[in-house]
Amino acid sequence: MTPPTMILEDAPSAVETLQRASGLVAPALNDVVARLSPELQPAIRHHLGGGGKFVRAGLVLLSAAATGAGEEGAVLGAVAIELVHNFSLLHDDIIDGDTERRHRPTVWAKFGVGQALIAGDALVVLALQLLLDEPTPERTNAAARLASATQAMIAGQAEDMAMERRESLSVEECLEMEAGKTGALLSCAAALGAVLSGAPEGAVDALADFGRHLGIAFQAIDDLLGVWGEPAVTGKPVGSDLIRHKKSLPVAIALASQQVPERLRRLLAGDLAGRDVEMVARMLEDCGVREATMAIGEAHLQAALEALDRAVLVARPRAELVAVARYVTARDR
Amino acid sequence: MTPPTMILEDAPSAVETLQRASGLVAPALNDVVARLSPELQPAIRHHLGGGGKFVRAGLVLLSAAATGAGEEGAVLGAVAIELVHNFSLLHDDIIDGDTERRHRPTVWAKFGVGQALIAGDALVVLALQLLLDEPTPERTNAAARLASATQAMIAGQAEDMAMERRESLSVEECLEMEAGKTGALLSCAAALGAVLSGAPEGAVDALADFGRHLGIAFQAIDDLLGVWGEPAVTGKPVGSDLIRHKKSLPVAIALASQQVPERLRRLLAGDLAGRDVEMVARMLEDCGVREATMAIGEAHLQAALEALDRAVLVARPRAELVAVARYVTARDR
Repeated sequence: MTPPTMILEDAPSAVETLQRASGLVAPALNDVVARLSPELQPAIRHHLGGGGKFVRAGLVLLSAAATGAGEEGAVLGAVAIELVHNFSLLHDDIIDGDTERRHRPTVWAKFGVGQALIAGDALVVLALQLLLDEPTPERTNAAARLASATQAMIAGQAEDMAMERRESLSVEECLEMEAGKTGALLSCAAALGAVLSGAPEGAVDALADFGRHLGIAFQAIDDLLGVWGEPAVTGKPVGSDLIRHKKSLPVAIALASQQVPERLRRLLAGDLAGRDVEMVARMLEDCGVREATMAIGEAHLQAALEALDRAVLVARPRAELVAVARYVTARDR
Repeated sequence: MTPPTMILEDAPSAVETLQRASGLVAPALNDVVARLSPELQPAIRHHLGGGGKFVRAGLVLLSAAATGAGEEGAVLGAVAIELVHNFSLLHDDIIDGDTERRHRPTVWAKFGVGQALIAGDALVVLALQLLLDEPTPERTNAAARLASATQAMIAGQAEDMAMERRESLSVEECLEMEAGKTGALLSCAAALGAVLSGAPEGAVDALADFGRHLGIAFQAIDDLLGVWGEPAVTGKPVGSDLIRHKKSLPVAIALASQQVPERLRRLLAGDLAGRDVEMVARMLEDCGVREATMAIGEAHLQAALEALDRAVLVARPRAELVAVARYVTARDR
């Protein structure tokens, strides 16, 4: 018989962790969504039917387990985080005019802008309702944190939209925007399980920091894939972010770099299509922009992992947090 | 010198009440909104610059005063209610494709759908953040109520959208939809001041009931004006709801009535414009639909006023609640 301690010595697999999270949280998410108006069900079911990796839900569960609590007690928080995440996807798809997500039509493309808009509204309000249903101090604290994180995410999205209209931006501005757009909700997720289990403030803060850095690292890699990603893997055209004039991290790095020639700057400012995009992507790589983007991602992944050292955490879920962090910042995810 | 009791004997003026509410709440609303991302300020400022009657804010303040508390302690709740109300206006204008509100361009028409969408998102989340900032039991209770009311409002809006696509609906379905779309937030407003002041459950319930019936009465009159309103007063074209195939209360009554001839039913189902609309409005009036709509409005106003009898309330704010109720359900408001 395998002694129980052997389990702790296994290297945890992020895929297994996320499958466990999905198994615990997806049914609860479906139950909660069934409370909403019948008129909203088709749009929401279509959206949720596209699946999802349950990364944020997984972080909530691990955050509870890492601070010594059971994962079951954090399922509510995981559902709330997934509701907010899906609210943001529904609204972002309207804002960006994206007609496909996970190889299926987006809600606005299939059901109209009104349906997608109001379905998103219902999800974000439901997330907070859920936590406020039985207002223990821990749940009220969790609701307040989730509301603040959602507001920071909205501010990040607003900055992202504004930057698309601007001609220049600094790397710092870009990272600050991404800390809001992506970091805030991941930070909240990584702390929420600990908050719900009444863990000490030091552990909550360290986990929140872990999530924030992880969010920035995740976004840096996402930005990298937006320029150099394989269409077969990303499901998006080559250089999709370049075509849309998205002021992502590689563009911010290029605009700030002395090594980027004037010609490339002009290309970045103009309208790009087809072969241009591939050429610009290659030129950016030649100027070291890909490497610099990767370095920023790596640095924030490192900062995320170091944040975990600042708290007393249960070994197995801690190792799972590390595995999930490495998994979601891998280039081939 | 006028003895102080004379003030109680004055008939209160709804206009003065709402001016007082606006004077207390508008500056606080502006301060709170200034916390949001600078990128969202132009759109939100434009929207709030259009003014507003602060009916919901007024109800919150009166709800506190009627249960013996100071109005100042309820300003926070009044701001939260106005934030949710303005969130709904921003999103409804996108959904309805309305290009004007209060004789100015709507936010989506001026700044684009993305800006209006995300500005609305920021406002609804801010409303809940505000109440959760210092989570006393009263504020947490208020936040939970506001979240539920917002969800009911969203469900009402979803039903309204679905009904526009349907061929028939009953008067009951229409009233249920309007209880959600308009009644839920007014109900929450009328109860929120009492909740924040820790008033007994009986008083909170009576005030919530008052607000719900008032909301339905208000919507009935709004629907009446959508068919028979004077364009100069409503700022909308004659029979605007008929042109848009809005399944408002008069249409629901007409579809359910034995007295409505087949020809009128066909006209209601077809595309209406110009002279048709005036003729249909006249035909509906001849069949007693206007009178029936008015009767439903009156009945709910009556039910609202009777709800106030079920609680022990301070005389002056109680009289102001009655005055505001009569004012917002007047045909020439």
